[in-house]
Amino acid sequence: MTTTKISTDLIQQENHRRQDWLQQDYQALAEKLQRQHIDITTVTAQAQTLQVALPSWGVGTGGTRFARFPGIGEPRNIFEKLDDCSVIQQLGRMTPNISLHIPWDKPDDPTELKQYAEALGLGFDAMNSNTFQDQANQGLSYKYGSLTHTRAEVRQLAIAHNIEVIELGRQLGSKALTVWIGDGSNFPGQQHFSLAFGRYLESAGQIYQALPSDWNMLLEHKMFEPAFYSTVIQDWGSSYLAAKETGERCRCLVDLGHHAPNVNIEMIVSRLAQFGKLGGFHFNDSKYGDDDLDSGSINPYQLFLVFNELVDIQGNMPSFSPFYMLDQSHNVTDPIESLIYSAAEVQRAYIKALLVDRTALSQYQDNNDPLMAQATLKAAYNLDVEPILQMARMQSGGAIDPIACYRASAYRQQCARQRPTDKHATGSGII
Amino acid sequence: MTTTKISTDLIQQENHRRQDWLQQDYQALAEKLQRQHIDITTVTAQAQTLQVALPSWGVGTGGTRFARFPGIGEPRNIFEKLDDCSVIQQLGRMTPNISLHIPWDKPDDPTELKQYAEALGLGFDAMNSNTFQDQANQGLSYKYGSLTHTRAEVRQLAIAHNIEVIELGRQLGSKALTVWIGDGSNFPGQQHFSLAFGRYLESAGQIYQALPSDWNMLLEHKMFEPAFYSTVIQDWGSSYLAAKETGERCRCLVDLGHHAPNVNIEMIVSRLAQFGKLGGFHFNDSKYGDDDLDSGSINPYQLFLVFNELVDIQGNMPSFSPFYMLDQSHNVTDPIESLIYSAAEVQRAYIKALLVDRTALSQYQDNNDPLMAQATLKAAYNLDVEPILQMARMQSGGAIDPIACYRASAYRQQCARQRPTDKHATGSGII
Amino acid sequence: MTTTKISTDLIQQENHRRQDWLQQDYQALAEKLQRQHIDITTVTAQAQTLQVALPSWGVGTGGTRFARFPGIGEPRNIFEKLDDCSVIQQLGRMTPNISLHIPWDKPDDPTELKQYAEALGLGFDAMNSNTFQDQANQGLSYKYGSLTHTRAEVRQLAIAHNIEVIELGRQLGSKALTVWIGDGSNFPGQQHFSLAFGRYLESAGQIYQALPSDWNMLLEHKMFEPAFYSTVIQDWGSSYLAAKETGERCRCLVDLGHHAPNVNIEMIVSRLAQFGKLGGFHFNDSKYGDDDLDSGSINPYQLFLVFNELVDIQGNMPSFSPFYMLDQSHNVTDPIESLIYSAAEVQRAYIKALLVDRTALSQYQDNNDPLMAQATLKAAYNLDVEPILQMARMQSGGAIDPIACYRASAYRQQCARQRPTDKHATGSGII
Amino acid sequence: MTTTKISTDLIQQENHRRQDWLQQDYQALAEKLQRQHIDITTVTAQAQTLQVALPSWGVGTGGTRFARFPGIGEPRNIFEKLDDCSVIQQLGRMTPNISLHIPWDKPDDPTELKQYAEALGLGFDAMNSNTFQDQANQGLSYKYGSLTHTRAEVRQLAIAHNIEVIELGRQLGSKALTVWIGDGSNFPGQQHFSLAFGRYLESAGQIYQALPSDWNMLLEHKMFEPAFYSTVIQDWGSSYLAAKETGERCRCLVDLGHHAPNVNIEMIVSRLAQFGKLGGFHFNDSKYGDDDLDSGSINPYQLFLVFNELVDIQGNMPSFSPFYMLDQSHNVTDPIESLIYSAAEVQRAYIKALLVDRTALSQYQDNNDPLMAQATLKAAYNLDVEPILQMARMQSGGAIDPIACYRASAYRQQCARQRPTDKHATGSGII
Repeated sequence: MTTTKISTDLIQQENHRRQDWLQQDYQALAEKLQRQHIDITTVTAQAQTLQVALPSWGVGTGGTRFARFPGIGEPRNIFEKLDDCSVIQQLGRMTPNISLHIPWDKPDDPTELKQYAEALGLGFDAMNSNTFQDQANQGLSYKYGSLTHTRAEVRQLAIAHNIEVIELGRQLGSKALTVWIGDGSNFPGQQHFSLAFGRYLESAGQIYQALPSDWNMLLEHKMFEPAFYSTVIQDWGSSYLAAKETGERCRCLVDLGHHAPNVNIEMIVSRLAQFGKLGGFHFNDSKYGDDDLDSGSINPYQLFLVFNELVDIQGNMPSFSPFYMLDQSHNVTDPIESLIYSAAEVQRAYIKALLVDRTALSQYQDNNDPLMAQATLKAAYNLDVEPILQMARMQSGGAIDPIACYRASAYRQQCARQRPTDKHATGSGII
Repeated sequence: MTTTKISTDLIQQENHRRQDWLQQDYQALAEKLQRQHIDITTVTAQAQTLQVALPSWGVGTGGTRFARFPGIGEPRNIFEKLDDCSVIQQLGRMTPNISLHIPWDKPDDPTELKQYAEALGLGFDAMNSNTFQDQANQGLSYKYGSLTHTRAEVRQLAIAHNIEVIELGRQLGSKALTVWIGDGSNFPGQQHFSLAFGRYLESAGQIYQALPSDWNMLLEHKMFEPAFYSTVIQDWGSSYLAAKETGERCRCLVDLGHHAPNVNIEMIVSRLAQFGKLGGFHFNDSKYGDDDLDSGSINPYQLFLVFNELVDIQGNMPSFSPFYMLDQSHNVTDPIESLIYSAAEVQRAYIKALLVDRTALSQYQDNNDPLMAQATLKAAYNLDVEPILQMARMQSGGAIDPIACYRASAYRQQCARQRPTDKHATGSGII
Repeated sequence: MTTTKISTDLIQQENHRRQDWLQQDYQALAEKLQRQHIDITTVTAQAQTLQVALPSWGVGTGGTRFARFPGIGEPRNIFEKLDDCSVIQQLGRMTPNISLHIPWDKPDDPTELKQYAEALGLGFDAMNSNTFQDQANQGLSYKYGSLTHTRAEVRQLAIAHNIEVIELGRQLGSKALTVWIGDGSNFPGQQHFSLAFGRYLESAGQIYQALPSDWNMLLEHKMFEPAFYSTVIQDWGSSYLAAKETGERCRCLVDLGHHAPNVNIEMIVSRLAQFGKLGGFHFNDSKYGDDDLDSGSINPYQLFLVFNELVDIQGNMPSFSPFYMLDQSHNVTDPIESLIYSAAEVQRAYIKALLVDRTALSQYQDNNDPLMAQATLKAAYNLDVEPILQMARMQSGGAIDPIACYRASAYRQQCARQRPTDKHATGSGII
Repeated sequence: MTTTKISTDLIQQENHRRQDWLQQDYQALAEKLQRQHIDITTVTAQAQTLQVALPSWGVGTGGTRFARFPGIGEPRNIFEKLDDCSVIQQLGRMTPNISLHIPWDKPDDPTELKQYAEALGLGFDAMNSNTFQDQANQGLSYKYGSLTHTRAEVRQLAIAHNIEVIELGRQLGSKALTVWIGDGSNFPGQQHFSLAFGRYLESAGQIYQALPSDWNMLLEHKMFEPAFYSTVIQDWGSSYLAAKETGERCRCLVDLGHHAPNVNIEMIVSRLAQFGKLGGFHFNDSKYGDDDLDSGSINPYQLFLVFNELVDIQGNMPSFSPFYMLDQSHNVTDPIESLIYSAAEVQRAYIKALLVDRTALSQYQDNNDPLMAQATLKAAYNLDVEPILQMARMQSGGAIDPIACYRASAYRQQCARQRPTDKHATGSGII
């Protein structure tokens, strides 16, 4: 039986207060959708299938190079992180899997960790390696690169770490390795572009050799930061080439914040899928760069357009199943609240994308009727699908209003008492 | 009595078919809003007060420097443009005023033009001067600048043109002059920055002297294009300085597409209003630059955030009344359809901004509760306010579904028969 | 014998006045380079091998969607354009080949055109097709796409046009076809991304079938404009995929202005070359977008960094021989002057790249000494190589100071007398 | 007598080896400049007057939010930082003043610190306050703002800190306070724009009251980071308004990395100077955002264009004397080397700007001859002024090749022995 951190009685009480209005709104929306021959219960059921992984480090307060302002009651280790994740899952019902970051979350005993997670109703999503920081007693340094370092012994250290992460993930039940490196340069001339890329391909190939046959290897590109002149895997083009060269189960991971200004990300999603290389997502939002803001908080229509592609792709390729994760830096909010809220925003975008009249859209596209094509997207986007989100959660045992319920539970205050503040908490880095 | 281009019978028939569902949706939304103590009829009435001017040139098909692909039945003169504008107003009921562009729309007889407009139920909004193109037989050229040209005689020509536009506007009942210039440079070194800005201030001052006491002069800034290295009024900072130096009724006009990538436009709106210099808007949307795409088609949340500021400002300053205009380039759609649809998108953003719970928002801001502050904005944004838009239109005599009604009217096909295609139609330039 | 538009006597006189100083500067630089064991005459000879094609349309004054301000004496047809190009080549000695644009430059008699060019000492570089504009009596329209249009007959029209351009190029002695399309969309939803890309691949494949075995097909990507929401070949990633799918001699063309803000273009150059797909360049410069400013006028160090890659690539692959062309819009200058000056800027970047101490650079890279690696680039960049440019020109029969010599020749004034101004000159569009 | 960290004998030896070539190059350049009637000794003397402050924190290795990779022998306190700064000054001769950051550099005894600096031949430039981090035992937190916090007691804490920094600076002989705050928001709705700006004006006004009559107060704007949706002083427009409202000696500080993509910074420089509000600079370079890369390492022409404005302004206003500082994050280089090299790059830009033929430029501008106007700038920019930099240093007692001399001194290795590595060194933050 699953251990719960929030009283199920409290959830029921909170839901009870909101249930009548939900029924009323859900019914009104059902009737409206019915006019378009859409069955709301089918959509609700589809919404319930969407799962987005939580990054273990996301439940700690994030920071910038300038400062980190910790909140109260922050988790001090991977077990407390799982506790917090379980609260998010209990209330929101769409985040049952956790993405670990090694060495930040490296357990002494993987079996113990797995059992702890299972008791909380949690499993493990993609594993994340870390060769962008030096670990104590590591000997060699990643200051000038890891998988692409000019020295073979540094590359070997980074390769071995990735293989170790795979092994650990295998014990935990994960099915994917996400590789993001900070390798690049800060000065023109510092790095030889093609030699560095060649070394990347060689290193990635060695890691791929260690990949279990039912695993995926996900390559994450990023335009800049921590390197500020060039990055080895800087964009989807380089990521595609690397995935293509590395192997069939090597695919590209799209982080919404890792692109040049103005870039049409939904088109990149389409391109990668068309060539069989779309592997997963890191959801967040941004206004200026890799801001790691909460998903949908800046440009919710873009998030919808991304899901519009995903639903379209899925329609043509039922086996399509990318890895989804929230990757946000919660600098000014309670991380649990941000993750609950953001997961729902992702689900909202998905539901709206499900409601697009694709037959009509397709006809408008074929007939070059751009106004009605976009109006078809907007017709779905402008709907208020909140009742579906609420109903999906309630039916799954979650909270109609998960933020209110969380606050009512005083979980954070309880943590504050049990977890003394630690200004140098591990795991504050954000990928 | 107003001349109508679309049969009022048709509008009624079309509305009749949609009225039951509208009533149902409107009622459901009314009940939902009632829970927050919001009276839907009050909101509907407020929505009906929003007016957005149509640019005369907007009813022609736009183009790029590469090509223009004209549509059928395009208007060939200002009278036909007014005809098209009247269709937009008849169906959408929020665009009764037209913004003229001189010399494109220069009438032989202003009185005749005014009467023609009045018969269509139309009036005139801000006047636009044009010193970014050379006119036939103009003598001097604006190739190297107009209001900031190094030669005094060219500046005088440009100043005189602006004064002439004011005089014409006075006869037509306009109350504002919008000044946008293409002056700037394509090469470092081409123009002396501070001398050019000094010349601008001097020229603007002379135009201001000719401004009637109940007029506003609106300065429009633009980061680049047609000048590609520097622009004299490049951003809101320069626009503010120029407006401040020029006079009290000289204010800044914000075109949503005229900013550097990533810039927070809603904050600029706030700054200009706080210092008494927010004069008006050119609504459109953009993904890459000054794309002049349809309002709300790319980032509808940004449009909402702009109106969130405007509603807030208006709450504190009831006399606040900026000039609103759609400024879009309709390259691939029927311009009439785009203008109807875009005006509604602007109205949608305004209605959602009206629904923001400002008391709650203010408390969350004061208490530094960013999650709930943003959730308060999103609560309003996520509502489906389409029933309010439809009801506002229907009650004002417009169409519940104006695009469908327009297509049913076959107005464009009728124009196609009456207006032979002219590949070099005037007025295809877009500010 | 080559027909010359500028008196060779004048060139000699002009050079004579400058020769002493040139010898003095050349000698001083020679001694300085000698310290690094670089022989200046070898570098000068290498500089003389660089050839950059002139676009036929570049000798006309460019414009923007707002206006075009023609200069005096503009060429009225392809023959006069060739005359102007010959002046550029005569004075600058690095632009003997012309890139034609069809249909703008379509000759009645290709043989006559070829002979006319040969008499001027000119040949033909890559041919450019045009499916981004509708031609009179074309029947079908490219308003909604060309090679990717949803209707097969429009695609066939565009394919046939490209094949016709190849055939014409074959008669003229060209060896490449450059394909740039304006296809894309202005609204989310207007175009189905993957279906459109699929149609592109199919169309490109058909064109490739018609390609002579000693030709290259160059695909030019562009992020936006004329389409403002999405472009079918939007970036190097899509261009690579298309070139890869199309065929071995299908390669990517990099226009320096066709990228998202901040993108590291020199790294794209490296990636494409590493995977055998770098086919050519359109040189220009930009501050904001696809500004088509004169090469090196905004960021000359970037141009140097691009050539730093090219020289490095050439060092490893002697057969590497991309197609180089200037692609600029001369809106405010005499196009002949801009082309002379820009070609020299390209040559300047090449010469500086030749002077990079690659052995030292390589060691600094291997040893992770970023400061000295960048200092090695800067050491070459900071040199004043003007004497090499001047000597290279003089030795080849050109002018030490080609702009001064051009102005002294009064060629433009002569053209003004012979070519009455035409405000609607063809060929003002810029790719 | 000044204490020196590098043996003066070593410097003389190193210079001796390079002196002949320097004389030769200097002489060749002198003759070349003489043709334009420029006296190289005058320019050399002017170059020697340029002073750029060193930030105390700049001598520590910087980092990103992901990691910091410390170098060996890093300074552990303000005294060791001054030691390092003295090395930079000894070799480069243009950085005699240090900009402190409080509380990072807060001395127990200001007099002792002042004497220590004086013994090293160093003085103090602008003081920097810090309200973007919480200090231990601070009680209240800046998590949600400092000078603009919604709670008055937090604002008072921040104001009091700034006043304390002024008092400390007064004791040290500083003449300016630089105020940069991280205040802003991460979510739409989090902060009320105009209320926050109003609070800023009030707080800044209180600080200004405490400003000595011969001091300047410098406001530094920044578009984003650490706040990622909005920043209170986000651009030069807001900075200007704040400086204008605050007082006559309150001016704007321009950090080259704190702008939106593509923005024309040299024009901002001109605008602020024209309206009497240009107070100072933070020099660095960037490719993507606030990258804090070494000055001139990415776009040296832009740095030249900035100095082109500064020299022009100075020509018209001899009293013009902004505060110059290097503000860079040295993540992959020895900070001492980066600061020596960058200071020289700033000087190089200044020297080239001095060499612009302003009479000719002005005529080309007046006559609208953009090609020759830009060619006039390029003529100066393309010169190799390295001999002037070297001569200016040598004549002032510095090193002809300061990097080589520094490496020969083995100063860093000596520090490594005397200063054990501390992975959590203070002062790694970068403004």
